[in-house]
Amino acid sequence: MAERLVIIGGDAAGMSAASQARRLKKPDELEIVAFERGRYASYSACGIPYWTGGAVDGPDELIARTPEEHRSRGIDLRMRTEITELDLDRGRVRARDLDNGGTESWTGFDKLVLATGAVPVRPGLPGIDAPNVHGVQTLDDGQALLETLKEAGGDRAVVVGAGYIGVEMAEALVRRGYRVTVLERGEQPMSTLDPDMGELVYEAMCGLGIETVRGATVTEVRTDERGRARAVATEDAEYPADVVVLGMGVRPQTALARAAGLPLGESGGLLTDLSMRVRGQEHIWAGGDCVEVLDLVSGRTRHIALGTHANKHGQVIGANVGGGYATFPGVVGTAVSKVCDLEIARTGLLEAQAKAVGLKFVTATVESTSRAGYFPGARPMHVKLLAERRTGRLLGAQIVGREGAGKRVDVAAVALTARMTVEEMTALDLGYAPPFSPVWDPVLVAARKATAAVRAAGA
Amino acid sequence: MAERLVIIGGDAAGMSAASQARRLKKPDELEIVAFERGRYASYSACGIPYWTGGAVDGPDELIARTPEEHRSRGIDLRMRTEITELDLDRGRVRARDLDNGGTESWTGFDKLVLATGAVPVRPGLPGIDAPNVHGVQTLDDGQALLETLKEAGGDRAVVVGAGYIGVEMAEALVRRGYRVTVLERGEQPMSTLDPDMGELVYEAMCGLGIETVRGATVTEVRTDERGRARAVATEDAEYPADVVVLGMGVRPQTALARAAGLPLGESGGLLTDLSMRVRGQEHIWAGGDCVEVLDLVSGRTRHIALGTHANKHGQVIGANVGGGYATFPGVVGTAVSKVCDLEIARTGLLEAQAKAVGLKFVTATVESTSRAGYFPGARPMHVKLLAERRTGRLLGAQIVGREGAGKRVDVAAVALTARMTVEEMTALDLGYAPPFSPVWDPVLVAARKATAAVRAAGA
Repeated sequence: MAERLVIIGGDAAGMSAASQARRLKKPDELEIVAFERGRYASYSACGIPYWTGGAVDGPDELIARTPEEHRSRGIDLRMRTEITELDLDRGRVRARDLDNGGTESWTGFDKLVLATGAVPVRPGLPGIDAPNVHGVQTLDDGQALLETLKEAGGDRAVVVGAGYIGVEMAEALVRRGYRVTVLERGEQPMSTLDPDMGELVYEAMCGLGIETVRGATVTEVRTDERGRARAVATEDAEYPADVVVLGMGVRPQTALARAAGLPLGESGGLLTDLSMRVRGQEHIWAGGDCVEVLDLVSGRTRHIALGTHANKHGQVIGANVGGGYATFPGVVGTAVSKVCDLEIARTGLLEAQAKAVGLKFVTATVESTSRAGYFPGARPMHVKLLAERRTGRLLGAQIVGREGAGKRVDVAAVALTARMTVEEMTALDLGYAPPFSPVWDPVLVAARKATAAVRAAGA
Repeated sequence: MAERLVIIGGDAAGMSAASQARRLKKPDELEIVAFERGRYASYSACGIPYWTGGAVDGPDELIARTPEEHRSRGIDLRMRTEITELDLDRGRVRARDLDNGGTESWTGFDKLVLATGAVPVRPGLPGIDAPNVHGVQTLDDGQALLETLKEAGGDRAVVVGAGYIGVEMAEALVRRGYRVTVLERGEQPMSTLDPDMGELVYEAMCGLGIETVRGATVTEVRTDERGRARAVATEDAEYPADVVVLGMGVRPQTALARAAGLPLGESGGLLTDLSMRVRGQEHIWAGGDCVEVLDLVSGRTRHIALGTHANKHGQVIGANVGGGYATFPGVVGTAVSKVCDLEIARTGLLEAQAKAVGLKFVTATVESTSRAGYFPGARPMHVKLLAERRTGRLLGAQIVGREGAGKRVDVAAVALTARMTVEEMTALDLGYAPPFSPVWDPVLVAARKATAAVRAAGA
């Protein structure tokens, strides 16, 4: 008789795991049942800002594989079905069919994959649950936002939080003709950068016509008589809003796992081993936005919700569930984003993160250009590197610039993975031709400056 | 009394060495005399195709630092002065002043840097020395070509050789309104790629309106009654030409070094140690296009003329001459180029190069896109990887695509430097967001396919 694999969550991690397992095991060896609460499976949540902004048609374009395609490959994908309980002792999950009056039923499993994703952080403020206050994490979220944008009048939007989603959504709303205010609690937008690099993003956002308010603590969403948000209040001011978007980050969605007593990290994400098996469990795996990943630079686990990790997790889980072998060694914390033509990238540790794990370091920041300075279209870019004192090992990189800046962070990401020193990096044989780079690539210029800083700092 | 450093060659390697040495040693400790045969010093030769095509004004824009700037920094730079002899026994060089009737004089040195560069390969064919047949290696060469383009009538150009310079010059001439024919001896343009990847370049060049003739052996440059080239003949045909550009590569310019008995490699390039000191010599360094560099993948020395290496060599030489310490560990053979919007990149070994050094390998080629498939501006790109059999170690990467393709080769360049396996590469934490990459970066997709190929090949 076939074993049964149950998967909770039908987006990147869950359905990648399902597909990979199916490649390795035929239906008569392994039955695969996947439950997805929403209306969509296997989609690119990262595309929602571009759908919102009109650059991409949605939601169909954002769907990598439809439920029907999965089913035709022998995966029993049950949409609009929420798992309400994990019963690990008896090896079963309780499912509620959201479309058929909430009928509940139990499904047994031999192997289980948790891919329950993350939910937007939604602080407990008055008015926060008004219907035109939107988080954007799932395609259903995106659909709901689009409906508000179609129906709500006015042209004022407030984005709460200026992280990746916040700045991407700010751009999307500008493209739709909104006057956009971004309220950021911190001293700079992009708290995923050091403040000095975030300052560059702040300046650029202002230049793009996005009002960015720093040090803004939101106290209330003020609603009208119909209960719809009409303004966002901070400690100091009130910002009119016909629509409010939450960009305060996400947290792992692990209530089921917590109730079942599975191990969670500081962020609430599930803890796994290198094969993505839940720690201490023989037959349960977890991946995607609901887990913590090992940060190879700090040696700590962290919660990083990112589709590229989720896909890798799914591949690894599917291989292991299917009787193969694969591991996910960890991340170095790479992220890249764009607001209008400003490219923002980071990898490794920020200054505060390095300090928090006991590392001493030097920093070096350079301004260079994406192409040879004389070449048409050469645009300024700033590169900041962190290197460990004494050893000179690269600890992190941040890049802010225009076209051609963002993906340069990959050089630092690979160097971090290989534990290179900044001095070793100065000799890297990177691609050079005038349309692509100055003769010294900006990353090499930064590596040279960081090498000098390491030497100057001495022992 | 100050020691005297003599530098032969005033472009990237020579003047970087001079500048770096000057930073470390004051004029009362180290006198620096640099000799440059041409009219320009410290320029970007790589910019000549863009000057020719009109994208860049020249030649001033291509000059990083003028002779006057060097002199104001305490470097005695003597322009239009050719060194005609190295007398190593007596520690002196003989210089000829090209502008003053060829007056010759001897200059003694305590330390010597050879940075004599390379010259375009110019086969001994009838008519090859006609005045409208141009190599493009120095700014003087570029100036001469520009004069021909201004003065010569007609609209037919023939480029002999379809390497980097050949394809870049073909584009430049198309931009100037020429009908361009490229004659390539090999089976594909870009012999710096494997033929299957070169085929993609061939197709693209045809699409750009560049006539590319493969398997074309040039036999003669046919001249008119004034001795000017009017056509290029191959074994099979004749191609009318109002101007001819040589793009058959370059060879190290080491006649002086050879006459002085200094060690040369198979290509004729000078051989150095890791500090860029000429092998067996205590006080002589060499760098830039006149040396062979260690290829870290094959373990052999090779001649690779590239401004980015020359600049690094100059830095290393300057540090060592100035009493500091630096090394140039070698290259992995990265190169990137562009013809119109086609980006062409490679790093590591081609199939033939890997075979030639006794490596057994598998290959994997994938077609993907530069951005998420649904994102506006996503363009196809092809990535080919070579991985060693059994170990799975990355041996080389080739990329052909449109915007966003070329610099992705840097990921492979760093991975080669770190001696990563393709399986290790599948877990690389590369920057992902829809405007920058599909959720699986094309390099990762190729690494996955190569990993499967390594496994399939077995032991």
